[in-house]
Amino acid sequence: MHSPAAPQPADPVGDSRALRAPGVRMRSLLLDAALPLFKAQGLAGTAVSQIAQAAGAFPSQVTYYFRSKEALFVEAACREVLYAAQQTELAAAQADTLPAYVDALVSAAVQADGLVMFIEALVLARRRQDLAPLIARTTERLHSEGARAYAEMRARRGWALADDPALRARRFWALVLGVVLRDAAAGAGAAASASEIQALLRSEWQLPEAAAAPSGTPAARLRAVASPPR
Amino acid sequence: MHSPAAPQPADPVGDSRALRAPGVRMRSLLLDAALPLFKAQGLAGTAVSQIAQAAGAFPSQVTYYFRSKEALFVEAACREVLYAAQQTELAAAQADTLPAYVDALVSAAVQADGLVMFIEALVLARRRQDLAPLIARTTERLHSEGARAYAEMRARRGWALADDPALRARRFWALVLGVVLRDAAAGAGAAASASEIQALLRSEWQLPEAAAAPSGTPAARLRAVASPPR
Repeated sequence: MHSPAAPQPADPVGDSRALRAPGVRMRSLLLDAALPLFKAQGLAGTAVSQIAQAAGAFPSQVTYYFRSKEALFVEAACREVLYAAQQTELAAAQADTLPAYVDALVSAAVQADGLVMFIEALVLARRRQDLAPLIARTTERLHSEGARAYAEMRARRGWALADDPALRARRFWALVLGVVLRDAAAGAGAAASASEIQALLRSEWQLPEAAAAPSGTPAARLRAVASPPR
Repeated sequence: MHSPAAPQPADPVGDSRALRAPGVRMRSLLLDAALPLFKAQGLAGTAVSQIAQAAGAFPSQVTYYFRSKEALFVEAACREVLYAAQQTELAAAQADTLPAYVDALVSAAVQADGLVMFIEALVLARRRQDLAPLIARTTERLHSEGARAYAEMRARRGWALADDPALRARRFWALVLGVVLRDAAAGAGAAASASEIQALLRSEWQLPEAAAAPSGTPAARLRAVASPPR
């Protein structure tokens, strides 16, 4: 199906059967090799020849499997943001209270390398409509995984809310993208973005405001004001 | 204060006293001339010499007043998004009901040229920290004007809500930026972005879902399901 003669964008999360095909294996190898280079040097600072060298491949294989460095970047970014979303869920799964959960989700999401890469990929893909399906699939996956994770937490902790997990997940990621894009341009750091998203989500969820305690991490402060939702 | 020997980024909305200074007048002239060129040709497709010619100025004056084409673009985009926000308020001011108001706000915002330019400016400014203060001022203005407009509508129409207009405005613009950035990359059009933002805002405001009527514009449909809030 995925023969080298017909390379196709793989599902970013992968499929164990498809990975057996040699073409898909080389795609994956190139993605793995490119990722640390993109993170360290950015898209513009990374040459196709460097990526090929790091993967033990020829530069022509990069263009063969991905057509362009930009397409490889977008695919790596989509994979990374899905990984970041998984890590975000894991970080938040320990939270005992809804405010602590919201805080942990936001802190983990805004600090992830994958998020910054994904925003850059979104900007790139605006002019590359061949990449739109991959962005659309990644977005759907972010939303469905986020909805599932929230519904599980809500059930496990017994939070008495009748809200729609799908809407929560879509709003979460839209707010995260909008605030991080804006704050990065306005010179605000990840901590400022996290506070802003936390404030917006807290009021949406009708949670108490963060206490204005002069000391302690935002997470510690949120836990200090945690109370049973509604 | 604003002599040609010391050009400074003007407040994007302008100040009638400052406009008397010849340097500020030339800045404004260059911004006016550049705007239709950027809209028609994009940033990359517009040359400094074209902007100068359209303004009856020398190319050296563009670089003198703005340092770079990119900085001129960001300033034009900030002015345009504030204008788009004003138009958004005007379009929504006719709404009789809260659902119609939300619908009109979203429709006007996502269709504005100024919004697309502003997103491009946000991306540019991430790597140009000298432009961060202008982005930060523009964002503050978007939020404060949005909060004022919503508080006025709420009072004028007698909507019985005790919500915080500042939070509503910040969330509105964060959602608009996040959804439009993402949808443009995923190949979705302005209509899809508008529906998504309307759905997210409707659930936030606890408004009824849009009726699934097969005919009528989204605005007409929203008005058809309008009921007194809460």
